[in-house]
This record gives sequence, C-alpha cells and structure tokens, in this order.
Amino acid sequence: MASMPNHAPHPSPPQPVDLILRPRWLIPVEPANQVLENHDLVVHQGRIAALSPRAETAQRYLASQIQDLPEHVLMPGLVNTHCHAGMALMRGIADDQPLQAWLETAIWPLESRWVGTEMVRDGTLLACAEMLQAGVTTFNDMYFFPEAAFEAIDQSGIRASLGILAFDVASAYGHDADDYLNKGLAVRDTLRDHPRLSFMLAPHAPYTVSDATFERVATLAAQTNLGIHIHVHETQHEVEQSLAQYGERPIARLERLGILGPQTLAVHAVALDDTDIDTLARYNVHMAHCPTANLKLASGIARTSAVAAAGINITLGTDGAAGNNRLDLLSEVRLAGLLAKGSHQDASLFPAHRLLYMATLGGARALGLADHIGSLTPGKQADLCAIRLDTPSTLPVFDPASHVIYAAGREHVTDVWVSGQSVVKKKQLVQISEEEVSLKARLWQNRFRG
Amino acid sequence: MASMPNHAPHPSPPQPVDLILRPRWLIPVEPANQVLENHDLVVHQGRIAALSPRAETAQRYLASQIQDLPEHVLMPGLVNTHCHAGMALMRGIADDQPLQAWLETAIWPLESRWVGTEMVRDGTLLACAEMLQAGVTTFNDMYFFPEAAFEAIDQSGIRASLGILAFDVASAYGHDADDYLNKGLAVRDTLRDHPRLSFMLAPHAPYTVSDATFERVATLAAQTNLGIHIHVHETQHEVEQSLAQYGERPIARLERLGILGPQTLAVHAVALDDTDIDTLARYNVHMAHCPTANLKLASGIARTSAVAAAGINITLGTDGAAGNNRLDLLSEVRLAGLLAKGSHQDASLFPAHRLLYMATLGGARALGLADHIGSLTPGKQADLCAIRLDTPSTLPVFDPASHVIYAAGREHVTDVWVSGQSVVKKKQLVQISEEEVSLKARLWQNRFRG
Repeated sequence: MASMPNHAPHPSPPQPVDLILRPRWLIPVEPANQVLENHDLVVHQGRIAALSPRAETAQRYLASQIQDLPEHVLMPGLVNTHCHAGMALMRGIADDQPLQAWLETAIWPLESRWVGTEMVRDGTLLACAEMLQAGVTTFNDMYFFPEAAFEAIDQSGIRASLGILAFDVASAYGHDADDYLNKGLAVRDTLRDHPRLSFMLAPHAPYTVSDATFERVATLAAQTNLGIHIHVHETQHEVEQSLAQYGERPIARLERLGILGPQTLAVHAVALDDTDIDTLARYNVHMAHCPTANLKLASGIARTSAVAAAGINITLGTDGAAGNNRLDLLSEVRLAGLLAKGSHQDASLFPAHRLLYMATLGGARALGLADHIGSLTPGKQADLCAIRLDTPSTLPVFDPASHVIYAAGREHVTDVWVSGQSVVKKKQLVQISEEEVSLKARLWQNRFRG
Repeated sequence: MASMPNHAPHPSPPQPVDLILRPRWLIPVEPANQVLENHDLVVHQGRIAALSPRAETAQRYLASQIQDLPEHVLMPGLVNTHCHAGMALMRGIADDQPLQAWLETAIWPLESRWVGTEMVRDGTLLACAEMLQAGVTTFNDMYFFPEAAFEAIDQSGIRASLGILAFDVASAYGHDADDYLNKGLAVRDTLRDHPRLSFMLAPHAPYTVSDATFERVATLAAQTNLGIHIHVHETQHEVEQSLAQYGERPIARLERLGILGPQTLAVHAVALDDTDIDTLARYNVHMAHCPTANLKLASGIARTSAVAAAGINITLGTDGAAGNNRLDLLSEVRLAGLLAKGSHQDASLFPAHRLLYMATLGGARALGLADHIGSLTPGKQADLCAIRLDTPSTLPVFDPASHVIYAAGREHVTDVWVSGQSVVKKKQLVQISEEEVSLKARLWQNRFRG
C-alpha cells in the first residue's frame, strides 16, 4: 500500500442539490432589514437548503441547475392574504360605484346568473396567471366552488389557502350556511394532503352571517384548528347596520361569538375605533389590509398606524379583480406604505423593509404558514421571486429594499418559483399557457356581455 | 378625343400620408367619454391628419407605413406636469423621511456637491427613458442647467416644457435669482424655435423666493406671455412659516405679488383652506397634483374634490424620482382617482374618463399647449401612446378607459410616438440606447456613493 500524502483533513465532497440561484442581492426578510450580496440560494427537493456565501458555494454544493440573476433581487414570493380569485373574469365590469351599490346592482346579479364550477375554474386560472407574473406565490381565497378553484391552483403551480365558505345567502353553490360549510369541509377532506394547499374557515362577513352560523364556525375552528378568514368593518355603513340590528359593533359581536383569536384574519378593518383596535390586538387577530379596494370602493383609509402600534400583524391583500382591478401585491404594499405616511403625516412610518415583511412573512403568519413560507430560511419551501433592477425605471440602485417597494413594480418581476418549481421564467408563465388563459377570459367576456 | 364614359363623379385619389395606426380602440379624450372602435388614426408630417372610420381609410389614404395595434388602446401621450428630471439619478437615495429633513439632510447636500451640466444631462436622459417607456410624451421640468436637460430631451425625442428657474439660494448654477432668471431666459432665446420645447417661468417656491424676485417674475410673465410653474402649499409647515415670516399665507402673498393667473401652475397645493381654493379658482390657476410624492414625503392628501368643485383644472405630476421614486404617470393618475374616492368616501368621484383627461388634455392646458397636444384631434401633434390589453392582467375587457386607469400600468405601454416619430417600439427605446442610459446611471451611482 502506497504511503498517504501528509495533508489537511479531507474536505467533504460537494453535496448534490437541485438548483443554485446566484442573485445580485438576497433579501431574506428574516433576519429583518438585511440585504445580502455575494450569496447564493441553494434549493433542494423544493426547499431552501442554504443561503451560501458565494465564495463557498462551489466547494459545498453540486447543482443540477444553476441560474444567474446578475441584476436581480431574490426574495420570498409575495403572499396575498385576501382574494376572490374567480372574480378576475369580472375585472372592470363596474367601476366608480360604492361598495353596496357595486355589490347589489353589478356583482351579485352577475354572480347569481353565472357562478359555477367552470366560471370559478377559469376565473381562478386567470387570477393565478396574473398573480404569478406579479411575484405572488401564495394567495388566500374566499369564493364559491373552491374545488373548481383548486383545479386552476393545481394546474398553475401556485400555493393557496382555500376558504371553507359560510354564508347565510343562497347561491348556485349552497342553499344555506350549513350546506356551504359541509361542502367546503368535504373539499378539505379530499384535498388536505395536497402539498400546496391549506384551508381556512371563511364566514363571509358580519352582515351576511347569522349568530348561529358563527357559532358553528367557532366550534369547527376549535375542532379542526383551522384559521378564520372574514371581512370585518369594511365600511362605516356595516358598523351602523350592525348597531341597528344587533345593538353592537361587528367586532364586539364576533368577540361574543368566539370568532376572534390568533388564527383569525380580519379583512379590510377600515372602520375601526380605538376599542375595536384594542379588541383585535387582545385576541392577536391578524389584519388583511386591502388599500386599493378600500379606496376604490370609497370605504376609506384604514388606520394602519394605530393598528400597527397596537401590535397587530398587518398583511396585504388585493381583494378581487372586480373591485381593485389588479391582483398586484407590489402595488398594494407600495400603496399601504404611501397611505400610512401621507394620511398620518409621518414619512418614517412603515419603512421599506417593514413593508416587505408585511407582504411576505407577515402574510404567511396570518395564514398559519410561517413555518413553511414567507422568508428565505433554510428548511422552508422555496417560494421565490426575482425582481430585476437594471432598467431605466430602477437605476441607479442605492437600496434594493427601497427599490422593490417604491420604484419597481410587477413589470420588474422576471422569475418566480413555488416549492422550487419554476412557475414564471423570463416573465413567461411556465406551467400554464397564456393563450389558454386569454382564450377563456375572452369567452367569459362574451358570455357576460351577451 | 375619345368620348368619356358616363359615370358618377370620379372619386378623389387616396391622399398620401406618412402613417396609419389601426388600433382596437381609440380614446380621443376630446370629445369626452368616447371610445371609438373600428377607427384608424392617420398621421402626416408629425400631426394627426384624421380619425378615419376603418371602412373608409383605404380609399381615402395611402400610407407609407401602416401599423396594426390589434389589442391596444391608442390614446394621447401622457402629460407629466411636474418633474425634476435630473434628479432621476438620486432615485431611492433617501427614503422614509419628511420633506424638510429629506431636502436638508439628503438632497440639497448631494446637489450642492454634484449638480452640473453632466449630471443634469445624464439624469434627464434617464428620466426621459423611463417616462417614454411609461407613455409620457411631455413633461414640465424645473431644475438647474436646463440647457443640459435640453440635450437629453433633444436626443430622446420627448417633448418638454423647461423651467426658467428663479431661486434666492445660490448654487453651482446661479449666484442669485437674477442670475438664474437671466441664464434661463438666455436658454429660451437660443432654443425657443425647437419644435418640441416650450418654456415656463419657474420660481421655485414661496419659501425660497423673495418678494423682489416674485415681482420680477410677474413682470417677465407679462412681457413674455410665459406661464409660471411653482411649488405652492406643499405642506402645512410651509403655510405656517409664511404666516410667521410674512404675516400671510403663501397663496395670499402670491396673489399680492401678481403671480397668480390663468397661466400659473400651482404644484402640490396640499395644504389648502377654502379661501386658498377660492383664490386659485378666481385666478384660473391650474393645479399639478403629485399624489405619490405628497404621500411619501408625508405632506398629506390634497383636497382634490373641493379643488375640482371650484372649477380648477387638476393635472398630474410625478415630481422627481428622488422623492417618488418612479416617473410613472399611470401610477399617479390611478392613485389620484383612488385617493379622491377613498379620502372623500365617494366612489363616483373622478371616473376613469375624467382621470384620462387630467393626465392628457388637462395637463396640456396647464402648460399652455392645449392647441398642440393632449387629445387625438386633427391638426394636433401626433403625440400618442399605445397600451396593450390582451394580457392576463388586463383581460377580460369590458371598458378600455377603466382598464387604462385601474388595471393597466406602464408595463402595458408598448408603443409611443412624439410628433409622429416613433420613440418607443415594442417596449424598446428607439431614439436612445438603453445601454447608454444604464451605463450613465451606474456611473453616477458610483460617484454619489464614493
């Protein structure tokens, strides 16, 4: 046997991995306020394996695929905590109307005629296409026929939290609240092992759900450990109607009925007084702030400064495309920051890194998914979004986090991954065909007009 | 001589023209509230020759070039009525600070070190690139060294209104207000025949301009018939400072000094009381509403509902990229609409066609250019913008005007013309090189950091 050379301990061989991404900047979101340069993101079996200093990557990892992102920020995919995806087919069909008129004269009549599995599937596919191209990797949905929404979710490669609807108004989907709940629970039973699906109970709103239904929802939440996704205090009108009908504000009523808790997501939450904010904070309720929809439907401006000061987790939602009219979370997070600064006349409120948190990890927490997504943390799912900053609208670059919020938009999103799978590549959809999506949207355009 | 056949009057031969554009929809802006289908836009010698019913176009016009825009809205190019283009190089260099701190600790020190002809030319070129790709065909500028800005304007093919600055603060550009004015007037004397340039007197703001300088500006305005472009009532702080120093509100002071009139453009105009609004309305002053900058710098939310009710012409401005941080007029006009609806809780305020007017013809009026640009009117310059609506984020299409405002963004702008010259084609800059623009932006990034 030949003599062994005298040498340092033998280095371990490079670990085989699926994918190495080499961005100009990495924003992990957690730890907070960091922008890493000269770091690679290592992905294996759908998860983040490491954030590797570039100088060490080659000796540590051997990748099946390496992708350079030389002028890009790589960050967690965006989390849209409130959407009615199927309504994408009604984008722009009725504008410049307040919430109640818009619902009663435009949206509900259309829905009562057309909602069904085909519409929900096609509308959700359109919404998934739009959201993926805008860097949204997870959305929280509340709509009829979640089993049809699932088909589009499954096909497009996006991650979603589906609502198990409760609604005391009959529709093509359900004849009463129990029917809605039973159907939603059955969908969950069938699909609960899907790797990109989760579920929340979704009682629509205080003005459409009875006390008895809320009590059943509270019981189900306790039994199943599911979160609760609900519109709350969207308008002052809603609060006044509740005072007239129940003698209490909706949030007080929800408290009495056991709906508030650390897995409850209060959507909109515009018309809040100090007591409402205290109550939400006391129960550790999360907020889905939907600034565009709140402005466009004239609901008002949410009191995000006071809400944040109370310690409430503020997340961002697009609402549905019928009311917004875009499913563009980068627009929402920018607007959330601008509105907070301007309406409270304090420019230091919600700085860029804080806003990025709200659009990613904050959202993941609200959906009960913070252990799985929302930050570039080893072990989490590789839900990622790359944003290109070497364009005339994003140069020069002094602070990439500022640019993601204030200068860039969905037009700068180039590549998106969900669980390590490419879903958008060079701005093009990967898992679904833009032609198919467009064709279906045009089909429904003709039907709605006909 | 052979006998002439007996026939109907001989049709006139087709008229030779330079360009025929065949869009899916034409929004002329004037007449108001119209969306034309099956119409072509005929361009000759830089001007709009006709809006021709498609069925008649071929027999009437013989074009050197025909361009199909089968899924596009064709509309007037956007008019950005307030910009500091040279500041594009400072995009994102200091965020999340209120106006005075931002100016005094970040922007002014940087400007005092770096402002010069090279910076203004390179910064303006970057701004022109960004604005053109966003469908902006005219901008109204206020910055140092307008002769350097001109070089970028000339090169890029954009139209601009250049400010003849008046400023009682010394800088690398001027040592006192007379020096600024004399230099600006000399630039105007040299460049006044340029086909894409116009000029306005630009006294910076009430808090940086003395009574004596305002008096000279008023005299010059009367002598030259130039308009006046000025920051006014941007913050409550400005109003209070003026009350302390002059014993009157800035607008009252400007009235006394003869600065207000039907060619005056009041920028920002956030901190307005009812008397201020009455005064601006009485003098037919125009307003440059800059909603993003007003929010981001925590100046507040302008009272656009009351301003519009008083009959004041509201136009849109991006402000400079250092404060916004994007030169994206479609973002501004959407935000203007959303803010008005939300802050006044009236969803019917500023419907989509009204907002389109503000971003085009309203802006042209404020710059004294309404006879030349701002609508698709035969005889006007062919300053045009095509916006593509067959994408997953803009389908279906029920109302193209709504989509331009609420669903589309600069990412949907595909082609832009100024005076009939192509400046953006399939999203790419035509007259200037994106590589050159980017290289220069990076150069300044390094200098500012160094």
